[in-house]
Amino acid sequence: MGITLEQAQAAIQAAHQKSLELGVKMNIAVVDAGANLVAFARMDDAWLGSLDISIKKAKTARFFDMPTGDLGKASQPGGSLFNIEVSNGGLITFPGGLPITDSTGRVVGAIGVSGDSVENDHTVAEAGRVAVADR
Amino acid sequence: MGITLEQAQAAIQAAHQKSLELGVKMNIAVVDAGANLVAFARMDDAWLGSLDISIKKAKTARFFDMPTGDLGKASQPGGSLFNIEVSNGGLITFPGGLPITDSTGRVVGAIGVSGDSVENDHTVAEAGRVAVADR
Amino acid sequence: MGITLEQAQAAIQAAHQKSLELGVKMNIAVVDAGANLVAFARMDDAWLGSLDISIKKAKTARFFDMPTGDLGKASQPGGSLFNIEVSNGGLITFPGGLPITDSTGRVVGAIGVSGDSVENDHTVAEAGRVAVADR
Amino acid sequence: MGITLEQAQAAIQAAHQKSLELGVKMNIAVVDAGANLVAFARMDDAWLGSLDISIKKAKTARFFDMPTGDLGKASQPGGSLFNIEVSNGGLITFPGGLPITDSTGRVVGAIGVSGDSVENDHTVAEAGRVAVADR
Repeated sequence: MGITLEQAQAAIQAAHQKSLELGVKMNIAVVDAGANLVAFARMDDAWLGSLDISIKKAKTARFFDMPTGDLGKASQPGGSLFNIEVSNGGLITFPGGLPITDSTGRVVGAIGVSGDSVENDHTVAEAGRVAVADR
Repeated sequence: MGITLEQAQAAIQAAHQKSLELGVKMNIAVVDAGANLVAFARMDDAWLGSLDISIKKAKTARFFDMPTGDLGKASQPGGSLFNIEVSNGGLITFPGGLPITDSTGRVVGAIGVSGDSVENDHTVAEAGRVAVADR
Repeated sequence: MGITLEQAQAAIQAAHQKSLELGVKMNIAVVDAGANLVAFARMDDAWLGSLDISIKKAKTARFFDMPTGDLGKASQPGGSLFNIEVSNGGLITFPGGLPITDSTGRVVGAIGVSGDSVENDHTVAEAGRVAVADR
Repeated sequence: MGITLEQAQAAIQAAHQKSLELGVKMNIAVVDAGANLVAFARMDDAWLGSLDISIKKAKTARFFDMPTGDLGKASQPGGSLFNIEVSNGGLITFPGGLPITDSTGRVVGAIGVSGDSVENDHTVAEAGRVAVADR
């Protein structure tokens, strides 16, 4: 259903490589078009609490086909989607989750990264996303 | 896997003693490096709702290797980690949870305390933490 | 509500001592009359999966004021309580959980032990139970 | 905390390779000594329901440091551990989960495989286990 294991592993590998370049320890998750886990990697000594967050970021990005940080803008107090995070068994709406599209622009899955600042989480997720989109 | 039962019980005992000094009734939980419970004590007539909170504080402190209150600063509305609390089956991000390091500085577990003001929760947790760190 | 922390810790200590005598590594949990955790200890290198089981045994014993093994006799296929284990967030109905009564015979809590054979689990739980009942 | 990502990915790769040889489509999960996920791969068109089962098999094998099928022998009706499966958020006690030891014999994690017959699940898990044990 969408992304293949080969593509997912390519995304994991690219994100892992980017993490090494940045000197950060990440949890990296890739889900398919059904928002179910396809591949996952936790780097040695990465935060344990980021395991669940990385998977939830990937799911959130696919649930709404947008970067997790975009959803977070609307979930703040007073926002139109306030506290949407309690749905779906828990959403994560800060940066680090991105939909993955194939070469035709169709969403085939998503990647979620957690383990450092949200900026670095996003940068690593982007490296993984591009590895599939460019193939 | 990290903290021993003997160390965990020493932390509980020190935190209990500090609670008696302060005249507060606490729930005190200690988890190991895998964030799994090692020792627990609920003082007579302590808030029942604080049982789960004390365990979640200990887990949260180990999940991210930082005081729970530090995480809470980033999870406020508009913060970079808004609503991170919905992850990992529920995080607690106000003070009262602290990582426990051994004499070499390695994180071997964490302590979580709940039952009074967050200031007192933190003070009691610190007493427990020190009992292990100083051994 | 029922058992005091002092009593619960006495039960834990007696059960721990019995475990050392038997050469087994146990998870030991004590709940109060409300079936909420009062004290807990996990011995070094005890099975990780027995953490939850010890707490569930203690809760189960208090939920029905009987040894967990007794309940298990009625929960077998064809029995009157078949698959009762799925209730209450999960019951454990094999031996190792015992109600704790005070000197007047009133149930004040329960103890649950897990980490070895069900016979040894029961023996250790009994050592903890007696430490309170005899006081 | 036990197994490294490099070891876990070696286990996944070996299990994947064995699955291709057998012509089966598997979900393959590896957890560390704390029973937390380290690496995961779902082969294209593998059963979706086996995703959760593979992770639960890996956790179960580490929770009790034994092959999941061994636990299942004791959890049958009339057995000493009847319905243990309701604990720990759900255990899987049929074959396909194996503890992973390092070269010194220490348990560093576990592998869980699901997607075909339990015999094939076990065979694939064994291929993954050996890839780490032999390094």
